[in-house]
Amino acid sequence: MSELSLHPDRLFPSSTEQRGAARAIFAEIERLPIVSPHGHLDPGLFVSNEPFSDPAHLLVTSDHYVVRLLHAQGVPMPELGLGALASGRRADGREIWRQLCSHWGALAGTPSRLWLEHELYELCELRTTPSPETADESYDAIKARLQEDDLRPRALYERFGLDVLTTTDPATDDLALHEALGNDPTWKGRLLPNFRPDEVVDPAHPSFAANLGRLGEVSGIDTSTYTGFISALESRREFFRGRGATAADHGVPVTTTERLEPAEAGEVYARLRRGEGSPADIEAFRGHMLDEMARMAADDGMVMQLHVGVVRDYDPAYAATYGSDIGQDFPYAIEFTRTLRPLLSRYGNAEGFRLVLYTVDETTFSREIGPLVSYFPSLFAGPPWWFLDAPDAMARAFVALGETAGIAKLTGFVDDTRSLFGIGARHDVARRVCAGYLAKLVSEHRLSLEEATRLAVGYAYQRPKELFKV
Amino acid sequence: MSELSLHPDRLFPSSTEQRGAARAIFAEIERLPIVSPHGHLDPGLFVSNEPFSDPAHLLVTSDHYVVRLLHAQGVPMPELGLGALASGRRADGREIWRQLCSHWGALAGTPSRLWLEHELYELCELRTTPSPETADESYDAIKARLQEDDLRPRALYERFGLDVLTTTDPATDDLALHEALGNDPTWKGRLLPNFRPDEVVDPAHPSFAANLGRLGEVSGIDTSTYTGFISALESRREFFRGRGATAADHGVPVTTTERLEPAEAGEVYARLRRGEGSPADIEAFRGHMLDEMARMAADDGMVMQLHVGVVRDYDPAYAATYGSDIGQDFPYAIEFTRTLRPLLSRYGNAEGFRLVLYTVDETTFSREIGPLVSYFPSLFAGPPWWFLDAPDAMARAFVALGETAGIAKLTGFVDDTRSLFGIGARHDVARRVCAGYLAKLVSEHRLSLEEATRLAVGYAYQRPKELFKV
Amino acid sequence: MSELSLHPDRLFPSSTEQRGAARAIFAEIERLPIVSPHGHLDPGLFVSNEPFSDPAHLLVTSDHYVVRLLHAQGVPMPELGLGALASGRRADGREIWRQLCSHWGALAGTPSRLWLEHELYELCELRTTPSPETADESYDAIKARLQEDDLRPRALYERFGLDVLTTTDPATDDLALHEALGNDPTWKGRLLPNFRPDEVVDPAHPSFAANLGRLGEVSGIDTSTYTGFISALESRREFFRGRGATAADHGVPVTTTERLEPAEAGEVYARLRRGEGSPADIEAFRGHMLDEMARMAADDGMVMQLHVGVVRDYDPAYAATYGSDIGQDFPYAIEFTRTLRPLLSRYGNAEGFRLVLYTVDETTFSREIGPLVSYFPSLFAGPPWWFLDAPDAMARAFVALGETAGIAKLTGFVDDTRSLFGIGARHDVARRVCAGYLAKLVSEHRLSLEEATRLAVGYAYQRPKELFKV
Repeated sequence: MSELSLHPDRLFPSSTEQRGAARAIFAEIERLPIVSPHGHLDPGLFVSNEPFSDPAHLLVTSDHYVVRLLHAQGVPMPELGLGALASGRRADGREIWRQLCSHWGALAGTPSRLWLEHELYELCELRTTPSPETADESYDAIKARLQEDDLRPRALYERFGLDVLTTTDPATDDLALHEALGNDPTWKGRLLPNFRPDEVVDPAHPSFAANLGRLGEVSGIDTSTYTGFISALESRREFFRGRGATAADHGVPVTTTERLEPAEAGEVYARLRRGEGSPADIEAFRGHMLDEMARMAADDGMVMQLHVGVVRDYDPAYAATYGSDIGQDFPYAIEFTRTLRPLLSRYGNAEGFRLVLYTVDETTFSREIGPLVSYFPSLFAGPPWWFLDAPDAMARAFVALGETAGIAKLTGFVDDTRSLFGIGARHDVARRVCAGYLAKLVSEHRLSLEEATRLAVGYAYQRPKELFKV
Repeated sequence: MSELSLHPDRLFPSSTEQRGAARAIFAEIERLPIVSPHGHLDPGLFVSNEPFSDPAHLLVTSDHYVVRLLHAQGVPMPELGLGALASGRRADGREIWRQLCSHWGALAGTPSRLWLEHELYELCELRTTPSPETADESYDAIKARLQEDDLRPRALYERFGLDVLTTTDPATDDLALHEALGNDPTWKGRLLPNFRPDEVVDPAHPSFAANLGRLGEVSGIDTSTYTGFISALESRREFFRGRGATAADHGVPVTTTERLEPAEAGEVYARLRRGEGSPADIEAFRGHMLDEMARMAADDGMVMQLHVGVVRDYDPAYAATYGSDIGQDFPYAIEFTRTLRPLLSRYGNAEGFRLVLYTVDETTFSREIGPLVSYFPSLFAGPPWWFLDAPDAMARAFVALGETAGIAKLTGFVDDTRSLFGIGARHDVARRVCAGYLAKLVSEHRLSLEEATRLAVGYAYQRPKELFKV
Repeated sequence: MSELSLHPDRLFPSSTEQRGAARAIFAEIERLPIVSPHGHLDPGLFVSNEPFSDPAHLLVTSDHYVVRLLHAQGVPMPELGLGALASGRRADGREIWRQLCSHWGALAGTPSRLWLEHELYELCELRTTPSPETADESYDAIKARLQEDDLRPRALYERFGLDVLTTTDPATDDLALHEALGNDPTWKGRLLPNFRPDEVVDPAHPSFAANLGRLGEVSGIDTSTYTGFISALESRREFFRGRGATAADHGVPVTTTERLEPAEAGEVYARLRRGEGSPADIEAFRGHMLDEMARMAADDGMVMQLHVGVVRDYDPAYAATYGSDIGQDFPYAIEFTRTLRPLLSRYGNAEGFRLVLYTVDETTFSREIGPLVSYFPSLFAGPPWWFLDAPDAMARAFVALGETAGIAKLTGFVDDTRSLFGIGARHDVARRVCAGYLAKLVSEHRLSLEEATRLAVGYAYQRPKELFKV
């Protein structure tokens, strides 16, 4: 049995001067409130405020990073709680937990390991490294611990020092849970919706036409014409803003942003709505709608976010059997400079417009995103996303973006998480990496410790709060 | 008010052994003469030798790196001295200077900040960090300082220890200023022209046909036929060589280098000259002319340089209002291996041919440029260009190129600057980064300190001097 | 004359804590047996067990890395032993050796320099750094040393602690040398063949049709039909397995893996066999055959390896004059995510399937290979290949892949070498870099020293042995 602990210097650079500066900087940001302007939590968590019931579901089955890494070790999906075992029954929590404990070593070096260690130590109060020998013991201990009130969702919100949390919601969502929470006098936090219209804007969505119908219903605006469709989208954005939304989010396969002439947009829309659109129509409409989304953002002041370049549900058979978000989503090379040119020529200098770029193709940081955000006042670089939300990848992004654009053009950390339980760990890692990055600049006499600390505070708290208008 | 200073160890790695080795290496290269084989200075500076008049124009308005970073902070172009304010008048220097002082923090971490600190401390003798509170005071102090004789252009040439400076000149330029300088017995320096024929070689240039006419005039050779056009180019290269030029430079969007058959080249040229070329003609002619430029370089011994992969004047409306070189030029992904194959198969092993590659797509360093220069005797890797002319990007390029090709296949530092005032700062940064890179190899027992120092001297002085034949 | 030595801390990070941890980790892996599951040695070396005769042929002419670097310095191929000198005679070993000694400094910073230093010091017992002044002396000394029995091939096998060696063999090879070695009772080692069917699978191979004929002969199966062709391939795989092969290897220009319908496959095959295939046929057949190779691998359990993205024999004239493998092979950008989707959707989760990806485009490590191997149980990341088989590139790959996929999804080091003489040096460098990478994680409290050491042992020995089934 080996001891589980969290070293106070973890993730800091190890040379004396850098570590000293990192400690000094981190001390000033460690306890700052957490701003979480983009993520994927279920608002129902805070409405019901029920305790988390099962360690395995909480820390394995519902975390597609962990599912991915254990699946890569040869553990079948059903043994991770996804789908039925050969016997027809579902794996129980204890069995799933044993899988994590048996493959603990395979997570070495990954951010999931760092996050899990943090959660197990800080929240679950575990003091022994997971191992097959202690799996049942730790399972029971965590299961019991999860029942305590200080681990309920609202208590975690307080514990993490959250200033604001944000969900991601379809354009047709009624936001009833957000409303319920807003009307609950016992809820002291802030949980804002975020407008994500992909399924009514991407004509390749499998139920695009049906989604347009639903958009018409919830907005009360006839979406059978292109003009109505646009009005309905504007109306939904207004509805979201009325519920506190300050931002929209768009997941797109490419970033082409060529605008169609109005008449052409109408014709393409009509064809796509009838399911008669060509591949060229799909591509053209996607490019046009990105421009439209930017136009609306420039008008209504909602911050526009782009998440680009991931093949989702890679193996269709697995997706059909086990669902989405099981770890089989993979990045590819993406371009920004030439594709965003039409959009940025229209809105890049427009007052009130704000666009945040997220990518999993890190080659774009020094080549495209850094240069672009270093010029356009409207443009900001989101933190390294998804697979890149890891200490060394974050450090590379700090270096590439900071040097090209200045640290003030980075949004600050955005956890983008599906795990409320992990929010504290994720921000802890991000703040440590930020401190380490700035400490290196201090140790090389590129920045004073005072200025580095100011920049860290801006990154950790002030900028995301101001930039996302939360 | 905080003190402005330049730490003697700035930019050196901070661990003890590396810093020690970096100091030792830097001591041997710090005072070497500066060779500047490619840049964008105005030769008139040295002809008139007038003092710089205004701090804001010198350090802000005319520096597109600084304009870019301040514009990204939301400062409108007219407040940086570009175009007229809403009132119709131009911002005066003091107002522009206040913008820089107010956004000083936003430059933290960028190379522009390092260069400015160096220029303000070493040349302007400022001892206080720029801030809004001290903006007027520093403006007045610098303005007065600029009038002193030791900051006039020729004095700066001496002060920086310049061995040679190089301008970049259109193929049709009469080089009158270079000639005037050559005939001035009081001018002790060397200022060489550099042949840049883009506007008569790229058929997409807006005034291509007119430029061909002008080429005919200055060369005295009829350019209405392809044969005449080629002769005129050869004649202009000869003219440039007669004025001291040792190199040519080509800014191209892609590096395709397929040669056309003579008859086809003539037909394509004729169509393009009449403005009747198709997009395919443009592409084919570009590829052909790169090959032709290489052929001439192999014949006449001028060093060929390629600068590739930047969208210039990104937002056409801004370019129309504020001009070029205001910071809105952005890189994209580029390829060398397959596109240069025809050219390198013809001239890559040719005696007398020399080709230098510059890129803003750093993924090509380990994948394409490093491998290619590690084989072809004619080929050299230029230093990381433009956005990559920054300490960490330079360090990455040293590692990627040095490991693949050996340090001797790097050209040495090329400042490529539009700022005479900044040349000392730029070479200081580059030499420090070079020393730091080699110091790491020494500290890891990959090189002896003696060999590392020899390599540093080669990089800082000997190789650019020999390679560019200056 | 300067002393040649190998510092015991070479390649370790230089800061105190990291160096200490690196020493501790390296001490546990330095002497582990070497597993070499993929390489390009000539089996005849071990059959004849003749001593190496000439230092220049051994360390220069036959090493395309060294040839490449010296050629880049302007040394003509004939002076490196390739092709005839102008006089018509061949350069002799002493002359070639002088070229290496004269350009020793140009290799500084490259892995070839590290490998050569290791070989010269450890095997040749040289104690003076190569230089023009000592060239003849060192040539004579090494030439004499090479005659000693402890440098014969079989003695080197023992000396390096080799556990197993692997060759790369065409599908039509009779493996007679492997058989001879297997029947030799005095041979104590293990030398396994590796199935490499490129020349019968890639329809762009210059003698594709003839190769199919030869495939028919050696397999005794009529390859005039597609069905026969597939059977013949299966039969050859079985033959190879009978001689100990556990893996197949495929060198492909792209990774498209679309499967053709059986009838279509037959028609395309027929056209290609008759030399009447279109470019589209070539592309389609390549994609189809990658899928077929995966299908066979899933069936017969041979590990599938992909080496992707290199232009071979870049300048056709040089290839015609001097042959292949003279250093003129260059990488380009490659894609895995979208192209491998069909193949991985079929076999990625199939029991018994195992696929190793090698690339010279390091941008794919964090963007594609890391994410893919972090999900698919069948998929592993090969070590950085070829130009990336260098200390800093390896370190970058460790960071990018380890963080995304966990270190357990890296195959371990694969030397892929043509140089028996250099195997010890290559594994020494790789193990040092591995120790240094893990030492950094230890120094930053991301891993305990115990866990890091376990991971190092897995990387250096256990995993390649298990994964490649050797």
